[in-house]
Amino acid sequence: MEKHETCSERTVERQRDVTNEDCLSELTKGRCPVNFPVAVVLPAAGSGERTGLSTPKQFCKILGRPLISYTIHAFERVFWIDSIVVVVAKESHDLMTDIIQKYNHTKVKIVEGGSTRHRSIFNGLLAFSEQGFGPKLQKPKVVIIHDAVRPFLEEDFLLKITLAANKQGASGAVRPLVSTVVAATTGGYLDHSLERARYRASEMPQGFIYDIIYQAYQHCSEAEFKFGTECLELALQHCGTSAVLIEGPSSLWKVTHKQDLASAEAVIKESLSQSACIITGECTETQNLSTWMKNGLMAEGMWVDAIPNIEQGMTLSTNRNLIKLSVNSPKSVEIEEFMKMCEETKDVLYPFVILWVYLNVSGQASFSQENDEASAIMTLAEDAQKRNIFLYCVRLSYSKDSTECERTMNKLCQITVALIRDRSAAFSGQMLYA
Amino acid sequence: MEKHETCSERTVERQRDVTNEDCLSELTKGRCPVNFPVAVVLPAAGSGERTGLSTPKQFCKILGRPLISYTIHAFERVFWIDSIVVVVAKESHDLMTDIIQKYNHTKVKIVEGGSTRHRSIFNGLLAFSEQGFGPKLQKPKVVIIHDAVRPFLEEDFLLKITLAANKQGASGAVRPLVSTVVAATTGGYLDHSLERARYRASEMPQGFIYDIIYQAYQHCSEAEFKFGTECLELALQHCGTSAVLIEGPSSLWKVTHKQDLASAEAVIKESLSQSACIITGECTETQNLSTWMKNGLMAEGMWVDAIPNIEQGMTLSTNRNLIKLSVNSPKSVEIEEFMKMCEETKDVLYPFVILWVYLNVSGQASFSQENDEASAIMTLAEDAQKRNIFLYCVRLSYSKDSTECERTMNKLCQITVALIRDRSAAFSGQMLYA
Repeated sequence: MEKHETCSERTVERQRDVTNEDCLSELTKGRCPVNFPVAVVLPAAGSGERTGLSTPKQFCKILGRPLISYTIHAFERVFWIDSIVVVVAKESHDLMTDIIQKYNHTKVKIVEGGSTRHRSIFNGLLAFSEQGFGPKLQKPKVVIIHDAVRPFLEEDFLLKITLAANKQGASGAVRPLVSTVVAATTGGYLDHSLERARYRASEMPQGFIYDIIYQAYQHCSEAEFKFGTECLELALQHCGTSAVLIEGPSSLWKVTHKQDLASAEAVIKESLSQSACIITGECTETQNLSTWMKNGLMAEGMWVDAIPNIEQGMTLSTNRNLIKLSVNSPKSVEIEEFMKMCEETKDVLYPFVILWVYLNVSGQASFSQENDEASAIMTLAEDAQKRNIFLYCVRLSYSKDSTECERTMNKLCQITVALIRDRSAAFSGQMLYA
Repeated sequence: MEKHETCSERTVERQRDVTNEDCLSELTKGRCPVNFPVAVVLPAAGSGERTGLSTPKQFCKILGRPLISYTIHAFERVFWIDSIVVVVAKESHDLMTDIIQKYNHTKVKIVEGGSTRHRSIFNGLLAFSEQGFGPKLQKPKVVIIHDAVRPFLEEDFLLKITLAANKQGASGAVRPLVSTVVAATTGGYLDHSLERARYRASEMPQGFIYDIIYQAYQHCSEAEFKFGTECLELALQHCGTSAVLIEGPSSLWKVTHKQDLASAEAVIKESLSQSACIITGECTETQNLSTWMKNGLMAEGMWVDAIPNIEQGMTLSTNRNLIKLSVNSPKSVEIEEFMKMCEETKDVLYPFVILWVYLNVSGQASFSQENDEASAIMTLAEDAQKRNIFLYCVRLSYSKDSTECERTMNKLCQITVALIRDRSAAFSGQMLYA
């Protein structure tokens, strides 16, 4: 879900100041194989009863952000996607509007859902038609239909689906079956089991030439609207278009049950904790510490940069995790100033972690902190959290004994990885010990 | 996966000192509807390539314990299960032996796996037959076949499967399909999609009259051994036994992909953090604090007991989380002594959390700790962790200001819930601030 620089993003970066026409002409020169308009319909009107939660799963929060916002982001970062129609239940309209504002979604139009999944998708498709309500969106050549609860969509797979849809009229993601599928008799006994190798699970995204899927829905029977779920089947039945089935990655999985939310969180956390940047400061002790930490964290699979200082307006590129080193016990005013500086760097990516590591080189035998100071840091951290920044501190006991020193360093590394990975609100503002 | 007192466990509890014969006679008096021998075969010889991890998923650790050990425990705690045959690959034999020893599994016999899933299951069944290798286990009336990677098995569902198998010859768990199932043409196009309502995903556990499934495997063709996966199908084909299909809970899901490990961990953590016991001490301040904490934690959905002291040999029943309150900054010797006392209580359940909450009533304006003391607590915590105990400390700033006081208490509650829930090794031995 995170911003990792894909080919198309680099292209967008360079083209920030050019017009759409310029951009389109770039495309037709062959820089991007998608040279036709593409839109997305995201049905999100379900009640999510299978999670056993009161909130529909598309609105459940993961690290403070609703699941659907991650899914929207996955499409929005792809520059050849023009618009995203999100279909929500009437009662979720305001919530969806808030989400769009809060997370700066710019390509989204909200449409009201129908009584069934197929009706909701059709409502979404109508947004591009004269027959829909409200201002009509530009009709796409290809429309992608996806689930709001499948946030882990990679651009390369989306490209495959889009190009195949454009060529064949329809395309869909499939995965191998995890369980054997069985048919039951009316009495509840095994009638037969299907040969697993011959069948696939039909997943999302699916792609269609807009006119094909629109026509299919126009010919849809009441029974199909009510009980059907499979868009590919409609295209086959009503337009004779047999979809290309493309094997997708396992990351396409759908958040269905409550336990799936934990999986989704783990995947997002993993992607948030892939890299860190150490702000070393100028003194020898912290620079040595930086070298050690860099090696230690890289051994844990993290990508680590180190820079001496942070300055206003500089770009931290893809880093969401800053480690600030100092030889003084950090005071709240000092932390506040540093935090402000971080927020003023370019393209800050949230949620953001600031870990302040304090190396006590004075050799003092005890650690002392005014309660007022501890309180002030806690208050700072609580405020920062509202801006989606997580602040933690670690103090290191300095030892000349090499075994002791190694133990401290290992502990520091373990704590750093855990803090960056978990982004726990409960521990923000803490001064930990390594 | 945790010990929550089921009906049969209470029965076992009362019967700890009676002989097997007595137990059996209790059963036949109708206290338990399972009045026939039941055994389990647990195929665990797979390489788990779908997780994308080097360790087969059944041996992946969740909170330090291999997944398969949770699954074995789910059967072992059911007193009417006599034996569990675990089928593992030759190269995993030693690892499995270690797991059995480390987690005190008493009903397990290890059998070597075959080249396919069906061959492994058949090898498991042979352990009860004259034709098997090594000492023969008592032949059960009903045998349950389960997956090592489905650890969340409730006794009530197992009972349903067992009784249905005894009555009908075969039974199996099913779940509604999450995705539509499609058949592809040889060219990779959609041929047709199945009507979702008519089909079910076949899950585990499955139950069989031992003689039926044994006979089915004896008649199994080479092709079935090689490509088949469905035991229910074999019983139908070779013995004409049509299994009863029973809808199981969503907790039966199979750990298949890497992200499923995170789900499994979340489920286990949730069950480990359902209750806590506060050791209040005798003074008014800590007793007041206890009342507050109890209310706060119960509002978070935790069940909380409070007792004044802990004594050697006492039973803490189902509590895995102890919260010790004091008005002094805890010294390492004191913590060590308390920890020892905890370990000497009856029926300690691991992993175990000890959270020491220190309320500074002296009104000192600063917190001071000798580095040696911080180090000693860290060392204690690291040693404890090897025994599967997690130690954390929290210090409270005491304030007469009621707003400040409420803030402190809310923070304490938040930290407590997070520590108990996460059981993070990285933070053990820390002195946190609330």
